[in-house]
Amino acid sequence: MELLKVSSNSNPRQVAGAIASVIRDHGHAEIQAVGAGAVNQATKAVAIARGFLELDGLDVVLVPTFAKITIAGQERTAVKLFIESRQVLVPAH
Amino acid sequence: MELLKVSSNSNPRQVAGAIASVIRDHGHAEIQAVGAGAVNQATKAVAIARGFLELDGLDVVLVPTFAKITIAGQERTAVKLFIESRQVLVPAH
Repeated sequence: MELLKVSSNSNPRQVAGAIASVIRDHGHAEIQAVGAGAVNQATKAVAIARGFLELDGLDVVLVPTFAKITIAGQERTAVKLFIESRQVLVPAH
Repeated sequence: MELLKVSSNSNPRQVAGAIASVIRDHGHAEIQAVGAGAVNQATKAVAIARGFLELDGLDVVLVPTFAKITIAGQERTAVKLFIESRQVLVPAH
């Protein structure tokens, strides 16, 4: 699945549109953000995407975690935000 | 319920301890963050708190939203992060 990489220059509304699209197609999405500005834009994007997805009857939540990644040969700590639908699981019968 | 106010100078590990404590007592918590640095510290704090709470068998998720607040007579947009325990819905049969 596509990893959405968000930077401090990302437009939260555009990222929100991308999140909503991935959620509609796959039911979950994954954002990677490195640095305070990027984490801020990503978190705001999820708040905006919640509004878009509410119109589809979807209630998404965020699961934040840390990940070690390598950028230009340097190890950095990224914040990964998993976005998941908080679905009421309907038993299959 | 206590509102946890996080700033860019907050220590994420200390905030994580506070989140875990409120979650254990109340089952949910609420963080307010104004500005990119504060949102970043708050999001990292939740990632750390998830680790603490996993040891208690609790799986918490984040619901980000916006709120208008007034600081020193100025209207600002804060990010509110609601932290909730993710329920596993057991089908009633």
